Amino acid sequence: MSELASSPSGAGSFGREGGERQRGGPASEQGFDPRTGQPVGTPVESTSDSLLDQICALATKSAASWAAADRAPYLERVADALDAESELLVSTADAETALGVPRLTGELKRTTNQLRLFAEVLREGSYLEATLDSADPDTVPPRPVLRRVLRSIGPVAVFAASNFPFAFSVAGGDTASALAAGSPVVVKAHPGHPATSRETARILTNVLPEGVFGIVHGVEAGVRLVRHPAIKAVGFTGSTTGGRALFDLASSRPDPIPFYGELGSVNPTVVLPSAATEQTATGFAASLTMGVGQFCTNPGLLFAPAGFVESLAAAVTGSSGGVMLNERMQHTYQSGVDGLAAGELVELVATGTAPEGGWAVAPKLFAVELKTFAANLEVLTEEHFGPAGLVVTYTDPAELPEVLAQLPGSLTATVHAEAADHAVAGQLAEVLADIAGRLIFNAWPTGVAVAWGMQHGGPWPATTNPLHTSVGATAIRRWLVPISYQGWPEELLPPALRADNPLAIPRRTNGTLS
Amino acid sequence: MSELASSPSGAGSFGREGGERQRGGPASEQGFDPRTGQPVGTPVESTSDSLLDQICALATKSAASWAAADRAPYLERVADALDAESELLVSTADAETALGVPRLTGELKRTTNQLRLFAEVLREGSYLEATLDSADPDTVPPRPVLRRVLRSIGPVAVFAASNFPFAFSVAGGDTASALAAGSPVVVKAHPGHPATSRETARILTNVLPEGVFGIVHGVEAGVRLVRHPAIKAVGFTGSTTGGRALFDLASSRPDPIPFYGELGSVNPTVVLPSAATEQTATGFAASLTMGVGQFCTNPGLLFAPAGFVESLAAAVTGSSGGVMLNERMQHTYQSGVDGLAAGELVELVATGTAPEGGWAVAPKLFAVELKTFAANLEVLTEEHFGPAGLVVTYTDPAELPEVLAQLPGSLTATVHAEAADHAVAGQLAEVLADIAGRLIFNAWPTGVAVAWGMQHGGPWPATTNPLHTSVGATAIRRWLVPISYQGWPEELLPPALRADNPLAIPRRTNGTLS
Repeated sequence: MSELASSPSGAGSFGREGGERQRGGPASEQGFDPRTGQPVGTPVESTSDSLLDQICALATKSAASWAAADRAPYLERVADALDAESELLVSTADAETALGVPRLTGELKRTTNQLRLFAEVLREGSYLEATLDSADPDTVPPRPVLRRVLRSIGPVAVFAASNFPFAFSVAGGDTASALAAGSPVVVKAHPGHPATSRETARILTNVLPEGVFGIVHGVEAGVRLVRHPAIKAVGFTGSTTGGRALFDLASSRPDPIPFYGELGSVNPTVVLPSAATEQTATGFAASLTMGVGQFCTNPGLLFAPAGFVESLAAAVTGSSGGVMLNERMQHTYQSGVDGLAAGELVELVATGTAPEGGWAVAPKLFAVELKTFAANLEVLTEEHFGPAGLVVTYTDPAELPEVLAQLPGSLTATVHAEAADHAVAGQLAEVLADIAGRLIFNAWPTGVAVAWGMQHGGPWPATTNPLHTSVGATAIRRWLVPISYQGWPEELLPPALRADNPLAIPRRTNGTLS
Repeated sequence: MSELASSPSGAGSFGREGGERQRGGPASEQGFDPRTGQPVGTPVESTSDSLLDQICALATKSAASWAAADRAPYLERVADALDAESELLVSTADAETALGVPRLTGELKRTTNQLRLFAEVLREGSYLEATLDSADPDTVPPRPVLRRVLRSIGPVAVFAASNFPFAFSVAGGDTASALAAGSPVVVKAHPGHPATSRETARILTNVLPEGVFGIVHGVEAGVRLVRHPAIKAVGFTGSTTGGRALFDLASSRPDPIPFYGELGSVNPTVVLPSAATEQTATGFAASLTMGVGQFCTNPGLLFAPAGFVESLAAAVTGSSGGVMLNERMQHTYQSGVDGLAAGELVELVATGTAPEGGWAVAPKLFAVELKTFAANLEVLTEEHFGPAGLVVTYTDPAELPEVLAQLPGSLTATVHAEAADHAVAGQLAEVLADIAGRLIFNAWPTGVAVAWGMQHGGPWPATTNPLHTSVGATAIRRWLVPISYQGWPEELLPPALRADNPLAIPRRTNGTLS
């Protein structure tokens, strides 16, 4: 079930791909069945400026009481309510995405588990970083009584992704972590699954206090949201182009705000000679083609011994493609791989099978020698979203570090090695640590666990900010700002900072954690 | 000695104020004595593009070994070496800044204490946020073995401030925290104290391994530095204008990088009726005029009962000004307060005394009614860097929250209240928490302790990123990025993540901190 565990993609959630259509009256978003290319469900109207302003005003109004609320039970109630409507949500999402009932059932479970993890994070309480310093008049400068804690940054905008209609969409990780932090959330729905977004939003709206959750539809609404004075930070999962455009908007506001974009990633994988086995070849093809390659952790770039290409090609030839999420994605994939095949830089070494009809594509594998790759690094590290891979062949692993160091930032980097190659693997890890947020050993990057120790981030262009993660317990840190109270009377302090520690949370007192 | 404890200012470290002069040959920076306006010391040449590129290449080259080094002893050796040359450093800085020997001696002590605090932070080890998760194949998605830790972001640029030639300059808080994080540092020296910068840089260069510390001079060098591919993040203390320009450069790079700017701040202070005493009036005047008001935590905006203006005016009338750091600053202050006095919005209620000669200015106090202030919020919340204050008079504290909520972001906000007003103070704190990073009770904002619990930051325009602090133990977090190791063999993991915890640091294991 590792396909249930995969990460969101570089697929654009900004721009007019997917279902946005202008229809004379107000613009609206229409879902389409990728298996047939035909419309499904009723269209959802794009959000007007005045409605968006109302939603943002409600978010602002609810911010203080939400930040002060006991939020863990709310997160659990949202999770329970989503689980209770699993059948409707999954069938609605399957009709709009063709991701299949098993994968979508697992993805919804992942989504509700994520909400429950954040309830756990809230109860544990160390996310508050509560810190108490007593006075010390003898130090330079003299130290007053200081008490520091983290608190919500205020209302947050979340841009949903195309390729995870649950886990990185309306009730996904950005929403869950922001709600946990005490931030009201306004989601910009992805146009690719408007009905799924509407149903999920209905459930959130029913459970949460008024104003704490809102949803908007349409490109213009997304732009207005990022510029809206009520919005204090933005989470985004989608394409590099779309994410960069919105990052630029957020950064150029009169009051710039943090923008956390999870964008494109080529996820370099190195197979060392000792690991060039049939099992590795099969594992690669499975990871490459899982979910029609529509994961941002897709292992699109594989470094392997020259003699291993044949095995990899055989595995990919035996693999199946599927229908992509939308027409633009299919078109971009197809023209990307056609361009590579027609060019002189790389060689097409394998083509898998494709189903009939709809927005179907076939897996493709290309190969190139390390020297040629290094000389054409920029063009050959472009992400081709979908089940396409490029094998870069080397003769000596010692050639790899210099080239790996020049790769663009990725969410993941992977090494496959048996004991004989552990020393080399260690050297590669030192280089890869500079270009990726998660290093994987003898496994595949698709599959992003929801855990305290997960890191789903990395240097540009993997994300717009390498200090943070969009998956795992610490994703909450993106929506929290510190405040220090100097000399305040005990009864006026937030509970997390009172002397008797009424919340019973881990705190640091005069430098010592306890 | 609270003047030794104050924070850096909104004073520009970007732009041509201070000593940058073109002289036919290569540009150079010349120090000036603010007491006379005459040059002191020999000029320092602006850094050429090729020299800057060399410095950055050395920083990149030294990054891996510095990140792996035992850095605490280095920080302590830098502190000891600075202390050992205290006399030379203080006299050099006094000649260039006129801040006085007692203040500068204390500021240098603060600077070396800061380096020692970060040595303590490194030894304590929880800054690494080491997290270990064991595998759980039964959860959705299945959890592999995950180990997460923070590591250096890479080489960092630091822009020094004008008003703290030690604590926020070459060896100041940004440099200390970045070196602690394992980042090589390239400082852009402030043109206002070139000789002080040169002497401090000499000491750092002597103690630290090659490439770990570099310094550049000149506006063009600063711009090139922020755009340089080797630089992965920027720290800045200075004016809103200069900081915003550099923030825009950092954000518009092909690969945007984090920019931590500490900019302007009006630091609202509320005196509730019970605290409108002679002692409060005297304390206000002392904080307002300390260091000729050249602190970014200067309490420039005071909300007080109408009947209290007379006492405040008397205290300011009895206070002394001094010489400002440079000619541009003096000119900007003078034209700012002259403009206010000539306008019809506010009333000049007090003028303190000024010394003779040099770049001297006198303290000024203005007053305005709350209603007029609220109607002219934008123009009346402009920072006038220097010893100028504006008293906003109210008749009922209940009028305050609505106006306070509209103030621009500040580093600090203060409430003065006796027991009778504690309930009102609590209501004000809720509003002020949204607009400031540090809330002070019955004290004055000048004086920024170096401690675990300090927060020196706040919403725009106080800083460019409200998630962080530039003072205190957690300032190190700005230069650290997370990485997860999935399934890696024990012997290839960083020491912080090995099963036997060889560093003996606090870690989180399967969600539990110990």
